[in-house]
Amino acid sequence: MATTYFSKRNLHFLLHEVFKAEELTKYDYFSAHDRETFNLVLDSATYIADTLIHPYLKEVDKNQPELTNGQVTVHPKVKEFMKAMGEAGLIGAGFSFDQGGQQLPQMISSCVGFILMAANNGMMYTGLSTGAAHLITSFGSPELNEFYVPNMLAGNWQGTMALTEPQAGSSLSDVTTSATPLPDGTYKIKGQKVFISAGDHDAADNIIHLMLARIDGAPKGTKGISLFVVPKYRPAVDGVSNHSSFIDNDVQSTGIYHKLGQKGVPALHLTMGSDDNTIGYLVGEPNKGLSYMFQMMNEARIGVGMTAAAIATAAYYSALQYAKERPQSRRLNEKNLLDAPQTPIINHPDVRRMLLFQKAITEGSLSLLIEAARLYDISRVAEGEEKENAFLLLDLLMPVAKSYPSEMGVQSVSQSVQTFGGYGFTEDFPVEQLYRDIRITPIYEGTTGIQAQDLLGRKMTMKGGKAPQLLFAEISRAITEASTFDDLKPYADQLGEELKRTQDVVMSLMPHAMKGDTERYLADATLFLEMFGIVVVAWQWLKQALVAKQTLLTQNPQGDDLAFYEGKIHTMKFFYHYEVPKTLGLAVRLKDTEVLTIVSEKELAL
Amino acid sequence: MATTYFSKRNLHFLLHEVFKAEELTKYDYFSAHDRETFNLVLDSATYIADTLIHPYLKEVDKNQPELTNGQVTVHPKVKEFMKAMGEAGLIGAGFSFDQGGQQLPQMISSCVGFILMAANNGMMYTGLSTGAAHLITSFGSPELNEFYVPNMLAGNWQGTMALTEPQAGSSLSDVTTSATPLPDGTYKIKGQKVFISAGDHDAADNIIHLMLARIDGAPKGTKGISLFVVPKYRPAVDGVSNHSSFIDNDVQSTGIYHKLGQKGVPALHLTMGSDDNTIGYLVGEPNKGLSYMFQMMNEARIGVGMTAAAIATAAYYSALQYAKERPQSRRLNEKNLLDAPQTPIINHPDVRRMLLFQKAITEGSLSLLIEAARLYDISRVAEGEEKENAFLLLDLLMPVAKSYPSEMGVQSVSQSVQTFGGYGFTEDFPVEQLYRDIRITPIYEGTTGIQAQDLLGRKMTMKGGKAPQLLFAEISRAITEASTFDDLKPYADQLGEELKRTQDVVMSLMPHAMKGDTERYLADATLFLEMFGIVVVAWQWLKQALVAKQTLLTQNPQGDDLAFYEGKIHTMKFFYHYEVPKTLGLAVRLKDTEVLTIVSEKELAL
Repeated sequence: MATTYFSKRNLHFLLHEVFKAEELTKYDYFSAHDRETFNLVLDSATYIADTLIHPYLKEVDKNQPELTNGQVTVHPKVKEFMKAMGEAGLIGAGFSFDQGGQQLPQMISSCVGFILMAANNGMMYTGLSTGAAHLITSFGSPELNEFYVPNMLAGNWQGTMALTEPQAGSSLSDVTTSATPLPDGTYKIKGQKVFISAGDHDAADNIIHLMLARIDGAPKGTKGISLFVVPKYRPAVDGVSNHSSFIDNDVQSTGIYHKLGQKGVPALHLTMGSDDNTIGYLVGEPNKGLSYMFQMMNEARIGVGMTAAAIATAAYYSALQYAKERPQSRRLNEKNLLDAPQTPIINHPDVRRMLLFQKAITEGSLSLLIEAARLYDISRVAEGEEKENAFLLLDLLMPVAKSYPSEMGVQSVSQSVQTFGGYGFTEDFPVEQLYRDIRITPIYEGTTGIQAQDLLGRKMTMKGGKAPQLLFAEISRAITEASTFDDLKPYADQLGEELKRTQDVVMSLMPHAMKGDTERYLADATLFLEMFGIVVVAWQWLKQALVAKQTLLTQNPQGDDLAFYEGKIHTMKFFYHYEVPKTLGLAVRLKDTEVLTIVSEKELAL
Repeated sequence: MATTYFSKRNLHFLLHEVFKAEELTKYDYFSAHDRETFNLVLDSATYIADTLIHPYLKEVDKNQPELTNGQVTVHPKVKEFMKAMGEAGLIGAGFSFDQGGQQLPQMISSCVGFILMAANNGMMYTGLSTGAAHLITSFGSPELNEFYVPNMLAGNWQGTMALTEPQAGSSLSDVTTSATPLPDGTYKIKGQKVFISAGDHDAADNIIHLMLARIDGAPKGTKGISLFVVPKYRPAVDGVSNHSSFIDNDVQSTGIYHKLGQKGVPALHLTMGSDDNTIGYLVGEPNKGLSYMFQMMNEARIGVGMTAAAIATAAYYSALQYAKERPQSRRLNEKNLLDAPQTPIINHPDVRRMLLFQKAITEGSLSLLIEAARLYDISRVAEGEEKENAFLLLDLLMPVAKSYPSEMGVQSVSQSVQTFGGYGFTEDFPVEQLYRDIRITPIYEGTTGIQAQDLLGRKMTMKGGKAPQLLFAEISRAITEASTFDDLKPYADQLGEELKRTQDVVMSLMPHAMKGDTERYLADATLFLEMFGIVVVAWQWLKQALVAKQTLLTQNPQGDDLAFYEGKIHTMKFFYHYEVPKTLGLAVRLKDTEVLTIVSEKELAL
């Protein structure tokens, strides 16, 4: 591979040393696996990333898909990539053996996503197929499963999530796409969807939309929304069972978005039923569509977080390489040595600060996401209290694991651009593209504002606040463990203070929730999400530093290994000294009684 | 004008009510002017902005200049725009009457820049000509003045600043372009320059580079750099005095940069002397080039700050309009009213918070920049202590007035994008372009890191720290005045606390400077710049709120005026409640004794 876009060493450290992925194999469902099979899957993903997508990072950005005469054409490599992913079993890696999958934990399959998205986040086709197929395997009939899933997992057919409508962006309760029952049990679909990623293209033989629509006469709001499979081409005869011939299903691409980034994948405006000839196949029961979608939401949001962490990681390695190679000026204490050669910019403290910031954000984000994936796995395969607790913790962490990598990833890539100076603004290096690409992540799958409302409005209070109790107990465990090491103790103590500060803020907000004044309670929810994110990632850094410290003491590593573990402890310290103090200001605002988000339009406009 | 991209009301408020621009007319130099002539100039700029550049905002972005066979072609409107600006006297607005200018204050001419850059920041051609021509009028011979300046101010010829070289980005002491004296007093120039904005294009009949080069045998470092006029076409005969025929001066466009944003203006790689036939004309004395450049630096940096504030302002008005028009979901306290129509998103507290953030950043930035321009004017035309104090204050504020609007402007436009949700990521609205455009501003004219070193390493300590003393006295004056109003007093008190906190931080850093450990002293200079910026902009907001308060009390404004002044006070409060607390975390880090920017390359890389 020509350039470094992620650290295999760090991925293995997190998976195996910090989160001990292999422990999952004690559960029956994962028992066919061991560390070796996990690593083989990651290596196979790396090979595909290196050979089939990373070399085309710029090319897919430069040649964005166009819609011509109703047809969307994408880069020729997309087809090859989808097939290779299918053949390597990576589209359905997390699916069960009898669904044609590899029965791998989410911990591993989401790291596959991390590697691919670090290589070229414009090639997000297969991740979309995974999510769509997973909805069918989870809630669809055996017929739908048999007919659609194998071709999706093989990389022949593209899956999509078709939720958003022009008049109802984030407000899914206002979905109006209609589904009229037909005598044969299928439905006639009519409506429009917008921003459908990979919603049509010529690298797949068929496009399978998992689409939300409202069956005629269904209740208003979220309780009247159903989920359908709506293919681009439907079987010509005999319901869904016949693969011998297909006809056009009247799903028309009526617009393509030209975007700031992620130009490798088309985003479509789709119109169903303009010739009154779109058929949809109900997934599961009527009116349960949104609840099905929400059961997939954690998976989808881990995916967005991983994409953000991946893009920021690729940008970091690009900036690091430049900083090591680019000579500029002299060291600050040697300014007057004009005869001395210029020094690489990595020797300037401000550049090193920018690099450490990027390392702290990206590795902290990845750690949190692997933690979330691990909880996702346990919530699926464990039993009883263990299962329930994992689920609660995952639900609580999810808005953070989606938003922190996205919001801070945007800032991290901005610092990658800054590291390059003027060259960062040019197309000579990949960071300008990554800066554009990552900007979608705070918007995808629920904007940061929506994640914040989810965290404070739902997750903090569900089941009488049990989730935050569980989290604080987990964090306290890390604090206790870290406190036994002299040089980690100050940071463990600091994290303890942060926990107290967070509880303090929650206590000061709760009265508004009690009174039912949701608007006031959630007015600064985004700031709470930011603060909570810092505390949670501080916990992740303490966990990483703890493992590094233990390894340094017990295994006496040398050379690169020594530098790796010392680098982990150093970066943890950086996070605590530079990032954690940001909670001070946030807490002041969050406990503040002055409401400022009530203001007239005129006051804003003039 | 079809869309709002800046607020005339706000510009007039700042210029006339807060900063009382007309008071400048008491100085002889500006005595030909009054409020009317100031406003006429702004109106004339607005007319040009509305008709000649704003309509082409997207077009110049979509059709970026290309270099073909050594020729750079730009949008046909560029020529028309340059001519119109010349005819309106706006390129040389700040030049003296006998230089063919309007002898206008920088306060006004930099607001002309603000209006133009808010309309279309890709059309930055004329601002570059102003800066280049100003170098000639300030330091060049009468011959150079007569020959070059009139055509530059008329918009026939393009001026550029040609500083940066491939091997010496920010490190001007490493400039290697050579100048060999010829018997006729001219110089033969050889070398390369990179990132030269408007460095070649077909909308101007000639390109006049103000170029740094090193005369053969000159001292090393910054003390051996001279300034030259290097035209694209030079007079064929008789030095600089003959306009009858021109020959090619061997300044070749050997590369064009494709950029993230500001695509309307080409950035060139120029090669001088490949045919050994580039002639340069010395400006002023040998070896004083860099000191001449630095005398123009404040003007250039005000320009960059204005560009950033302008772009962020345009994005804010775009986001505000969308938020008023886009219905989405129901108010948080009415979530269950499914029959109710969706509410415009401006009614969601999180959206209002994002809009107030944008308003607070953009109007705070513009206020600071007009303050800087006012000090620039006074430092030029006043006498004695008044002149010296204005100069010191300007010098101190300059790194902040360049960086704060740039750094926070990037974040502000990011919030504009976020206000649009998914649509913000598409080319359907201008914010994606503005998000790309503004990213250059923390890099232009000295990166944020360099501004931070300038602030802490030079400006805070020069003349025994007299500049910060003057600033703190100014701020204390505003505090005292605001304290007389009950509802402003808490904010005045808060600003007083911030002043103490800032002094505290400075005291804790000084010992490193005393010991000569510059690397340690400046390790977190960027954080100090950030903190200092918040305090300075908090001062600007207090000044604005004070004028608003006084006006509300004395003039009993109604309707739009009432909303305007109340909006000012509201936004001031927003800044104090949401932005000012950020200094808490910054101060903690700045007073922290743990040095973390010393780390091995390996620790960063693995």
